Amino acid sequence: MITMLHTQLEKSYEEMVVIRRYLHQHPELSFQETKTAAYITNFYQQLGIEVKSGVGGNGVVARITGAKPGKTVALRADFDALPIQDEKDVPYKSTVPGIMHACGHDGHTATLLILAKVLHSMKEELMGEYVFIHQHAEEYAPGGAKPMIEDGCLDGVDVIFGTHLWATVPTGTIQHRVGPFMAAADRFEITLFGQGGHGAQPHKTKDAIVIGAQLVSNLQQIVSRRVNPLDSAVVTIASFVAENAFNVIADKATIGGTVRTFNEDVRTFIPEEIERIVKGTCLSGNCTYKYTYDYGYPAVINHEEETHLIVEAASTVAEVDTIEETLPDMTGEDFSYYLQNVKGTFFFTGAKPYPDFSYGHHHPKFDIDEKAMLIAAKTLGSAALSYHQSSENK
Amino acid sequence: MITMLHTQLEKSYEEMVVIRRYLHQHPELSFQETKTAAYITNFYQQLGIEVKSGVGGNGVVARITGAKPGKTVALRADFDALPIQDEKDVPYKSTVPGIMHACGHDGHTATLLILAKVLHSMKEELMGEYVFIHQHAEEYAPGGAKPMIEDGCLDGVDVIFGTHLWATVPTGTIQHRVGPFMAAADRFEITLFGQGGHGAQPHKTKDAIVIGAQLVSNLQQIVSRRVNPLDSAVVTIASFVAENAFNVIADKATIGGTVRTFNEDVRTFIPEEIERIVKGTCLSGNCTYKYTYDYGYPAVINHEEETHLIVEAASTVAEVDTIEETLPDMTGEDFSYYLQNVKGTFFFTGAKPYPDFSYGHHHPKFDIDEKAMLIAAKTLGSAALSYHQSSENK
Amino acid sequence: MITMLHTQLEKSYEEMVVIRRYLHQHPELSFQETKTAAYITNFYQQLGIEVKSGVGGNGVVARITGAKPGKTVALRADFDALPIQDEKDVPYKSTVPGIMHACGHDGHTATLLILAKVLHSMKEELMGEYVFIHQHAEEYAPGGAKPMIEDGCLDGVDVIFGTHLWATVPTGTIQHRVGPFMAAADRFEITLFGQGGHGAQPHKTKDAIVIGAQLVSNLQQIVSRRVNPLDSAVVTIASFVAENAFNVIADKATIGGTVRTFNEDVRTFIPEEIERIVKGTCLSGNCTYKYTYDYGYPAVINHEEETHLIVEAASTVAEVDTIEETLPDMTGEDFSYYLQNVKGTFFFTGAKPYPDFSYGHHHPKFDIDEKAMLIAAKTLGSAALSYHQSSENK
Amino acid sequence: MITMLHTQLEKSYEEMVVIRRYLHQHPELSFQETKTAAYITNFYQQLGIEVKSGVGGNGVVARITGAKPGKTVALRADFDALPIQDEKDVPYKSTVPGIMHACGHDGHTATLLILAKVLHSMKEELMGEYVFIHQHAEEYAPGGAKPMIEDGCLDGVDVIFGTHLWATVPTGTIQHRVGPFMAAADRFEITLFGQGGHGAQPHKTKDAIVIGAQLVSNLQQIVSRRVNPLDSAVVTIASFVAENAFNVIADKATIGGTVRTFNEDVRTFIPEEIERIVKGTCLSGNCTYKYTYDYGYPAVINHEEETHLIVEAASTVAEVDTIEETLPDMTGEDFSYYLQNVKGTFFFTGAKPYPDFSYGHHHPKFDIDEKAMLIAAKTLGSAALSYHQSSENK
Repeated sequence: MITMLHTQLEKSYEEMVVIRRYLHQHPELSFQETKTAAYITNFYQQLGIEVKSGVGGNGVVARITGAKPGKTVALRADFDALPIQDEKDVPYKSTVPGIMHACGHDGHTATLLILAKVLHSMKEELMGEYVFIHQHAEEYAPGGAKPMIEDGCLDGVDVIFGTHLWATVPTGTIQHRVGPFMAAADRFEITLFGQGGHGAQPHKTKDAIVIGAQLVSNLQQIVSRRVNPLDSAVVTIASFVAENAFNVIADKATIGGTVRTFNEDVRTFIPEEIERIVKGTCLSGNCTYKYTYDYGYPAVINHEEETHLIVEAASTVAEVDTIEETLPDMTGEDFSYYLQNVKGTFFFTGAKPYPDFSYGHHHPKFDIDEKAMLIAAKTLGSAALSYHQSSENK
Repeated sequence: MITMLHTQLEKSYEEMVVIRRYLHQHPELSFQETKTAAYITNFYQQLGIEVKSGVGGNGVVARITGAKPGKTVALRADFDALPIQDEKDVPYKSTVPGIMHACGHDGHTATLLILAKVLHSMKEELMGEYVFIHQHAEEYAPGGAKPMIEDGCLDGVDVIFGTHLWATVPTGTIQHRVGPFMAAADRFEITLFGQGGHGAQPHKTKDAIVIGAQLVSNLQQIVSRRVNPLDSAVVTIASFVAENAFNVIADKATIGGTVRTFNEDVRTFIPEEIERIVKGTCLSGNCTYKYTYDYGYPAVINHEEETHLIVEAASTVAEVDTIEETLPDMTGEDFSYYLQNVKGTFFFTGAKPYPDFSYGHHHPKFDIDEKAMLIAAKTLGSAALSYHQSSENK
Repeated sequence: MITMLHTQLEKSYEEMVVIRRYLHQHPELSFQETKTAAYITNFYQQLGIEVKSGVGGNGVVARITGAKPGKTVALRADFDALPIQDEKDVPYKSTVPGIMHACGHDGHTATLLILAKVLHSMKEELMGEYVFIHQHAEEYAPGGAKPMIEDGCLDGVDVIFGTHLWATVPTGTIQHRVGPFMAAADRFEITLFGQGGHGAQPHKTKDAIVIGAQLVSNLQQIVSRRVNPLDSAVVTIASFVAENAFNVIADKATIGGTVRTFNEDVRTFIPEEIERIVKGTCLSGNCTYKYTYDYGYPAVINHEEETHLIVEAASTVAEVDTIEETLPDMTGEDFSYYLQNVKGTFFFTGAKPYPDFSYGHHHPKFDIDEKAMLIAAKTLGSAALSYHQSSENK
Repeated sequence: MITMLHTQLEKSYEEMVVIRRYLHQHPELSFQETKTAAYITNFYQQLGIEVKSGVGGNGVVARITGAKPGKTVALRADFDALPIQDEKDVPYKSTVPGIMHACGHDGHTATLLILAKVLHSMKEELMGEYVFIHQHAEEYAPGGAKPMIEDGCLDGVDVIFGTHLWATVPTGTIQHRVGPFMAAADRFEITLFGQGGHGAQPHKTKDAIVIGAQLVSNLQQIVSRRVNPLDSAVVTIASFVAENAFNVIADKATIGGTVRTFNEDVRTFIPEEIERIVKGTCLSGNCTYKYTYDYGYPAVINHEEETHLIVEAASTVAEVDTIEETLPDMTGEDFSYYLQNVKGTFFFTGAKPYPDFSYGHHHPKFDIDEKAMLIAAKTLGSAALSYHQSSENK
């Protein structure tokens, strides 16, 4: 049956490319993807597949029920784009100024639509149920996964698989990892309120820049001294803004950044330490502060058995030449929410568009190797089939 | 003769107020004060006083020659305004949006014009020459004093006096000081060039914010450890700007500020130390930099005998109740250039507009007590007369 | 045969305890362990086992050749003690003032001697060769492993196993890990040479303390910003010494500490970054420095198959109730050198002396649960037997 | 009468040298100067001059009453030595190992004794009273001046003069200054209590060195940002001590130093700011501290008229070629206490021992030009005579 699946997918590859290019030309920003959602919904309706739109926002969920009884496998693809101007010189370039599919979600969507179409055609042979989760708003916290789950997209689901086309990894490679796979990505902002004044009279002021500089140095200690060296953590100060005429002492400085972690204990520890250091630094500097910490997506923590299933599935795909365990990635993904609710795994499908080169994700010239969509579809589909197979045997 | 001068000035006080209010309503920015210059020139021409405009830019120089031989005394008033919106609620409020006489230069000009008019009327009694230097562009380095001197405004001048109406000091007070009176005010800007990147991957970047924070802390050592504690010095970092999305590591940080000193050795030492620290900090951080240091006005260093002349002159003024030595002020003035060329002194004339309160210089509600103009005129005029008197005796 | 081994070891447990206690009472410092070496040598000689002393220093190597042909397995135990005063109140307390077996090497030695004795008694059944490496000087870099290897102790050896009795882990637990197991532990010292002077005249000095403080802050960036967050690293400043009368500015500050890493690239990167930061900080502070970096033991990197052999072996031991993968430990071990030369693995044998409590290694009241020696002997011995068994099958 | 005084002093110069050298050979430490006190007392008793010993400790006070009525002038000399080994190669080298007159107090004493002897011989011509204050323990806070005043040494005194022989200034120079002349010299010590641990496990500790380094950087802000740039202030960290084995994280760091100021407001402000910064830094670092601040001598603030008297007096001295106003000196002197109680002034008498060179005060090879004692005696004596003269005229 896996062979049949692969053959059917190969036959539909052209269509996959057509869909992906159409979406690439018509990108929509997170939480505004109404046309894309309608496109997806329509695709399923045309095929007579059960589909529900407006799930937790712009989310769309389709469902195929196999002829034989079995468990329920969900497969997920996200479909939002980014506020980036497309600078590629290709016929399928974005037609929307300032908006672009610079992260490959167009490819994810095309992959999943075609995989659903093929599985639908094999319906009579299938066991159990297949749920196709088309998620909006992955790029922008709080994201689309959470509301879709709250709206029931995982109800009755036993396992979930997802992949990200990964432009920096060669096509033909599948990267997987049990446990931490992508980091929790949080965000903070600190405003220091000192007291401004004339640049010649520091003693009448509380210099927000000097205090802020001390704060930035102090914050380095969180990673260097306070987090277990065996735990990965990043505290990045991305912005330091206090802009004044050359002879004015700053009354205010705004400092903001991001925190990345894998371990939930570390994740809750760091914001407390930031506040401890902010509080002490302000006490030293006799100033006050405002501090906000916004939790973003939690870490993507892959489950063991489901990850092995992907490894096995990938080994059946002719186009795959390398299956490797990878290090965790410090970037974030709201696929984490699905994995907090059901078993499953998330993996990278190599999609390097040029032999020795690729533009990074979120780059204005970002592109993918479209062949990777076929690999992703085969791997996801094979894992789903195998899951049903192995469930039966248990 | 001093009594006659005082009496005449008292009679002309109303006119002084009219002039000052006219100028207050028609402020012009530094280097753009063409109408004000024309107003001043016209004033002298109407009186038949010798006047030269276009001196070193918008500067105006008038000259009165006494009936008797003698030395040459210069008196200086500046006449430019500031890019500040007038927020006072008075009839003579600025009529020009966003521009305002927020530092009292309108009062300086009215004072000097009326003093010239009165001295002109006493011409037959006067010894020597009186030069009235109406200087443009005091507020904005490189200032008007330097080009006016280069254009000859001090040629043949033996001594110069000037005053600043000082709104934070009670009317009736004259503040003087031999030696350092107002600071040298310089300006610097440093740009650190690190290497930007994703906020989750610090090891692939050179974090310009962390390096910049270290730099700000390091720069504190100049005043705390490297300058003689007996020398006054200020190194103010007024701006620290590195603005990025929350998940981006800064590739660049721009840091700017001002340096204030009285001693020329310290003044040349500090920019070298700044660069030493910038260089070392960049070496530590493996990044590069651009550093510019612009020398502003040098310190105003008053001469001893001429300062005593002002003290004596002030003691003849009925409205003066307090004559006091003051500490140096860390702000700057391009009167310093005149004192580098001829003997003289600069002093503060108390001009607090309300009994217990005043808005600081450069404040949108700044105002002066106009009575102070009379005091300033009497003190300057008396000092000029005394100078001629005492010169004759030598 | 494994059953026989276990039974024999159980019978010899009393002797193991006697040996361990004798060694505990007679500790010797690293590189000075001549009596302990003689004791070990004598033990083998009494049994008629081939033994060689003076291997790479005080090292002792014994060898048993089985009746049947096969590969060569090495087992290692270290035997040096520490410069710590024994504060335990037990009959077998150290008799040498200021020296103590505070890390369990006495137990390692007793374990290996009895294991050798038992295997010797089973000689006729054994395949291949068994090499017993009794290593001196593990506690003090450059350690005894390196010279023993250079002196041939690994010649002909195919695989090596070693364990550390681990007092903070419950008896009955075996902790293992493929890959990085214990960290590389290096050492550095930096002396900053400023210029001293009177505490009232900072401008005539180069203040080594202020510069040193800046250095300590700067060094935090290595871990917080410059090392990949996925790599574990520690840079600890353990000492900062600049002691002067209260009115004297420091001419010198001495700063020393340790660096811990697992990855060799990170290990060579950090000393370069330290020097970069020292150099830049000294340039900022206009002072000079002396910097030394001493590489200690490299990281212990366990091999995969050999680690699985230990897991299997441990599962045959009746007293073992928990076999678990552990996180790497940031402390160091010169077992790393053996693993750079031959395949093998190093593991922890739980040896917590009291039900809910233990003093840490190197504590003056450190002790072990002696039962753990039996577990260690069984696990090591079983792994050795299995290795031969499995080698034959290949 | 001034001429007579000068002539008599010249005649007694040899004796002055003999006394100074005797004292130089027999130095005693602060608060232990019993033999020196006995020597001084005996000197006065031999001459039949009224003398009181044991004043406020080892202090000695002599008194001469002139034939004519008048006010009371006090002259002060200190007589303690320092814990320094004399390394000079001269016949009058210290005979006491490890103790030395390395600051010229021997010269001060010889000067005052001979001046008293000469004035005593002129008794019949003198007006008013002369009090000779021989003070112990100037070198070691809390000093001898305070207890001597409490014990009545200034009772009835109208004015006081004192001088310091100053080896770094050429002989023939008198340096004076109205207002701040020598600084207040205080002392502080801060102990940070963190939590120690293994150098490989920073997350289990509170690293006292990293926190202490941050503290040292933070403290720079007091002088650089919080004290008025027109006020001189020094905050010196003289010691930073945290000494540990290379693999141990510091549980404690001890930081100590000195604060120098002239202005009492600044003097009380700085210890509060230090504590504010210590408190905030400890809050950031989650550690605790102990902080002590010991006030030393206050600033020496000279009075105006009395300083002018010294200038006049110095101008009568043949050997004086330069009388100059000097900048304040950041070092301390307990002469300040006298000036808090009565009018007076303290000045420097140039005493450079070699034409182009001198060892600094407190140097093991320190010496003075003995001729300076004659100049000091003439200046002090002349000022005392003039004071009486001018008091009469008022």
